[in-house]
Amino acid sequence: MDRSTAQFTIVKANAGRFDDAKDILAVEEPLEIRLSFGPAGDRTQKNISVTMRTPGNDAELATGFLFTEGIINDPTDVLSVELALFACAENKQNTVVITLSENIHPAFQHLERNFYTTSSCGVCGKSSIKAIKTVSRYTLNKAAPCQIDAGTLLELPSLLRRQQLAFEATGGLHACAFFSLEGELLIVREDVGRHNALDKLIGAALGADWLPLNQGVLMLSGRASFELIQKSAMAGIAIIAAVGAPSSLAVETANEFGITLIGFLREERFNIYTHSGRVLTRIYEDQN
Amino acid sequence: MDRSTAQFTIVKANAGRFDDAKDILAVEEPLEIRLSFGPAGDRTQKNISVTMRTPGNDAELATGFLFTEGIINDPTDVLSVELALFACAENKQNTVVITLSENIHPAFQHLERNFYTTSSCGVCGKSSIKAIKTVSRYTLNKAAPCQIDAGTLLELPSLLRRQQLAFEATGGLHACAFFSLEGELLIVREDVGRHNALDKLIGAALGADWLPLNQGVLMLSGRASFELIQKSAMAGIAIIAAVGAPSSLAVETANEFGITLIGFLREERFNIYTHSGRVLTRIYEDQN
Repeated sequence: MDRSTAQFTIVKANAGRFDDAKDILAVEEPLEIRLSFGPAGDRTQKNISVTMRTPGNDAELATGFLFTEGIINDPTDVLSVELALFACAENKQNTVVITLSENIHPAFQHLERNFYTTSSCGVCGKSSIKAIKTVSRYTLNKAAPCQIDAGTLLELPSLLRRQQLAFEATGGLHACAFFSLEGELLIVREDVGRHNALDKLIGAALGADWLPLNQGVLMLSGRASFELIQKSAMAGIAIIAAVGAPSSLAVETANEFGITLIGFLREERFNIYTHSGRVLTRIYEDQN
Repeated sequence: MDRSTAQFTIVKANAGRFDDAKDILAVEEPLEIRLSFGPAGDRTQKNISVTMRTPGNDAELATGFLFTEGIINDPTDVLSVELALFACAENKQNTVVITLSENIHPAFQHLERNFYTTSSCGVCGKSSIKAIKTVSRYTLNKAAPCQIDAGTLLELPSLLRRQQLAFEATGGLHACAFFSLEGELLIVREDVGRHNALDKLIGAALGADWLPLNQGVLMLSGRASFELIQKSAMAGIAIIAAVGAPSSLAVETANEFGITLIGFLREERFNIYTHSGRVLTRIYEDQN
């Protein structure tokens, strides 16, 4: 069995009956991300983060996290990624050690506090957005053609669901996927934590040298929070479509970064919250 | 209008038409939690955390967070809670300063790293559970009578939905509620972050001196992750019922702490993952 799911014995209650049954659950386990940096022969190791995640694609999760948090800037910053196996009873691979290239100095100031929340005049959404701007590598070029047909957009949720094999079994995993503007699925990742699913996706894109992801659509299986828009902005994503609702700050952030944010993408409907010019009605018009 | 929602102008796409429309979204804004401690006249202030939350019940969120993270142990540890207003253009109350009683030394070691993820033999779910055990104040007494009828349980989701006013408008808020064993709603809190909703609820219960919450049911509007079970264990909660799926580590943690964990509570069905003895079929049996 895949490491991302596990089987449990449960009691099922249905219409007045209690029955013992087997159930498949999404696995959640801690992952420790450690950074090794400095000159060869005199390297320092530092624990960066512990996140509760679904095992699988751990190297991508770790590099994606370091990139979306502004600690590394480029795939060439990373020399190697190792999964460490501890000799305990569980023997689980829950530690990733990322070794940086010798000349790379990790931007730890972005870690001390989540960088997007530091502000001189108190803490607010506006200051959080401003902080991302100082760190983000990519700016969306409004002149660059990145447009999608409304008809293609409406097909994405069912294309994503067909890929969500672990979700089918467990009902417990968030997914995110990157589609081409023609609706072709390019990357899909799942996790119990939606931020982890997106870090895995961005880590995979970073490894394949696909950044910025400004020619396609990021599809989210759930709601769109600030954190997901912030990570998307770091990866240069131009269009985000969520099955669920966005938050106020998600919309404000997408607006500031020139990102097209779509929510409640279900059946024949969706809402466009920001930069609606990237969504075309051609297919609609052809039909009418 | 309530600070928990905000109105935006959007484009609604429906069956081939694009129309301008108004939409109500859940507000998401950062909240900084600062701790003030030490002898009067020589107090130290320390930034503890910044969390993205929905404004409202901020004092409860801050005290609940400090309690569930093991930094404070008792409502009497807290001398005062103040919302700070910064003189910036936004003028938002996004900082809470919690002043501790003079003789209270906050347990910062639990903060340096999330306490439940520290382990000598590597990081794994088992070590995370063990770490909570060393910090949690409450142990569930299996002999103590805390039982609920399956029929009462089945009514809770609709009772919770009726209270979720902001969710109705926005579709974007997680809720949690504490019900008596007879199905009476005692506390309900909403937030864009499910961990924040639970910290608000536990902060409210702490302020009312209701802890441990071992005579009732915690109802969750979404999925049940490790983090929510960990916070529940800190508050001595005996029964947790979620509308969505639990994760593997949520089930393992509930099992270790003697918590009854119910998932997929919808219409006439639910799954009992752990300690099923607290769920009675009396009403079912009466009907058959």
